[in-house]
Amino acid sequence: MQQKNKVLPIRVSLIRRKFSDYKVDSIIFFNMNNIRYFSGFTGSDGVLIINCGTAILLVDGRYSAQAALEVIDMQIIEYKDKIQGITQTIKDYNLKNIGFEADFLTVEMYNQLTKCLPNEVFVPLADELRLIRARKDETEIALMKKAAEISSAAILSLIAQIKPGCTEKELALQLELNARKSGADQLAFEAIVAAGANSALPHARPTDKKIKKGNLIVIDFGVKCKGYCSDETCTIAFGELTDKQKNAYQTVQNAHDRAIAIIKANISASAVDICARDALGEKYRRYFVHGTGHGIGLEVHEAPRLASNSKDILDAQMVVTVEPGLYFPGLWGIRIEDTVLVKENGCEKITKMDKDLVIIE
Amino acid sequence: MQQKNKVLPIRVSLIRRKFSDYKVDSIIFFNMNNIRYFSGFTGSDGVLIINCGTAILLVDGRYSAQAALEVIDMQIIEYKDKIQGITQTIKDYNLKNIGFEADFLTVEMYNQLTKCLPNEVFVPLADELRLIRARKDETEIALMKKAAEISSAAILSLIAQIKPGCTEKELALQLELNARKSGADQLAFEAIVAAGANSALPHARPTDKKIKKGNLIVIDFGVKCKGYCSDETCTIAFGELTDKQKNAYQTVQNAHDRAIAIIKANISASAVDICARDALGEKYRRYFVHGTGHGIGLEVHEAPRLASNSKDILDAQMVVTVEPGLYFPGLWGIRIEDTVLVKENGCEKITKMDKDLVIIE
Repeated sequence: MQQKNKVLPIRVSLIRRKFSDYKVDSIIFFNMNNIRYFSGFTGSDGVLIINCGTAILLVDGRYSAQAALEVIDMQIIEYKDKIQGITQTIKDYNLKNIGFEADFLTVEMYNQLTKCLPNEVFVPLADELRLIRARKDETEIALMKKAAEISSAAILSLIAQIKPGCTEKELALQLELNARKSGADQLAFEAIVAAGANSALPHARPTDKKIKKGNLIVIDFGVKCKGYCSDETCTIAFGELTDKQKNAYQTVQNAHDRAIAIIKANISASAVDICARDALGEKYRRYFVHGTGHGIGLEVHEAPRLASNSKDILDAQMVVTVEPGLYFPGLWGIRIEDTVLVKENGCEKITKMDKDLVIIE
Repeated sequence: MQQKNKVLPIRVSLIRRKFSDYKVDSIIFFNMNNIRYFSGFTGSDGVLIINCGTAILLVDGRYSAQAALEVIDMQIIEYKDKIQGITQTIKDYNLKNIGFEADFLTVEMYNQLTKCLPNEVFVPLADELRLIRARKDETEIALMKKAAEISSAAILSLIAQIKPGCTEKELALQLELNARKSGADQLAFEAIVAAGANSALPHARPTDKKIKKGNLIVIDFGVKCKGYCSDETCTIAFGELTDKQKNAYQTVQNAHDRAIAIIKANISASAVDICARDALGEKYRRYFVHGTGHGIGLEVHEAPRLASNSKDILDAQMVVTVEPGLYFPGLWGIRIEDTVLVKENGCEKITKMDKDLVIIE
């Protein structure tokens, strides 16, 4: 509770300072991760209105008791109907120029709101709000380091637990168990344990397929600690690899290392992506079918975006992933991922596993 | 694959028959659950365009291989930029009146699309699409019954595993383990195991709090089988209850039983809610702070909505939950929930646990 007292009002006051740039007297938030960021409320439904002098959290009956426990320094209003609750609050506070998350609010909700409030001006904010959570404060970094420590340890334990005949699903469950026993609140996303041909699917789901000698196994895993995510991927070999696989592994590792080596404040996110792609070289580049990385925090994928067409600029205290991969459909795939904290003159890896090739027998 | 061949084209043809009512020549889907429903694609990002003659799934590079494995009878297009991909496809097929999910598409995406396609008419569809997945076919019902069977058995096993001193988190983990070992693909939502004062929070998260004698324990749990969810809640007593608690339990159980007893095709969803509320009586009604239930399927909460202000009418083959509860903030809470399949002249419980009060010592 003491931490909330210090940190959350700072976040609220930082967004208020932008009101004049955005030409608004208030911003209405619907994205539950943004609402959590400003208020501390962890429920799955609600609305937050921040105006110049007050912040008001609107929740339905399911969440009144929880909001009262979690939220301080904000007014809490219970609504029966969300649109009515928002309308009444906007009228009560006489708000006239209301910013909103244009990349979150649906067309339907927007139409309903503007119908109920025909004289108020709704100001779409999209790019303006993209990076509001991107630079992490000390509280957030500490939670993300804890999450990363738990998930790295869980993967490391799992590697010692792999036996021939285990299925992907069994390993995914064991991985989760390892993490939850070490204090993970929940998974950041469904664990990926993908062996053999499944490793060629970037977003594979664990199946009942048994691990066999000669398989590459992609393990992509993250947990949450008090809402904050970790994200790390390693690819291990079960038995000896072919020369082609070994060469591909070294190429991905090199791309991963080189991309991390150039990360620091004020570098463009696209430069990191291009660096990884260049390191893969002409021979492999076309098998790298996704962006190089993404911001991470309360969401496992959030701004900035590390891709060739990204316009984001990295800044100190951003936390981003670096995850080049190669995918040969029907055959096998490799991905190596770390999460790093951007600093003024470089970056700090917060995921803990060494990424040299591990061959288990 | 054979099942897909039969079921998915029927779903696509049913939505096409609505095109003239909606005055559209195509519908563009962004909601991944709707996309899965029509195409079988289980990825986390993509766009589906259904026009009069064709269905086109658009995915990015991460999902091309997966889409090719999962989707048949549809064209698959890989995009680098989503808006560009959609724009090009709409032009290629010469689509002019394009329906879209107004309660899913964001204002930002809508603005981008209409800017790229200034001469096309975008038709917002909200109420029109609300119930498209509500009536389940045999394939879906079989998966939901399997999910319900697994989660009911997992709760039943857990009840035998509760010991004094266990924490809520430990029990939630054990519950998940029970379910995953019996074949659950994943959880439908984060398991709720809420004891003592936490049981008064309808959406409590498991904590490190230890179970004590005299606690009421709310266990709200569901799993997914091939994407389809189950949802069931029981409230058990750890040690003897007070007379007030026993009386409240019987009242909730009565409300639950009476609401289920009136469910059948063509009854209004609000009538079910009102029935449950009436059964709670004047004394308790104000402590029931949420709706009586919700539809369930690929999403754990989907249409119809069983609430006093709902305009939905129940129909045969809908699957809905019935979950009255009483919550006394700071003290204790009770919720009892079953999932039922609506039939012409009644309904069939698909969750399996008996809901008489269980007292464990």
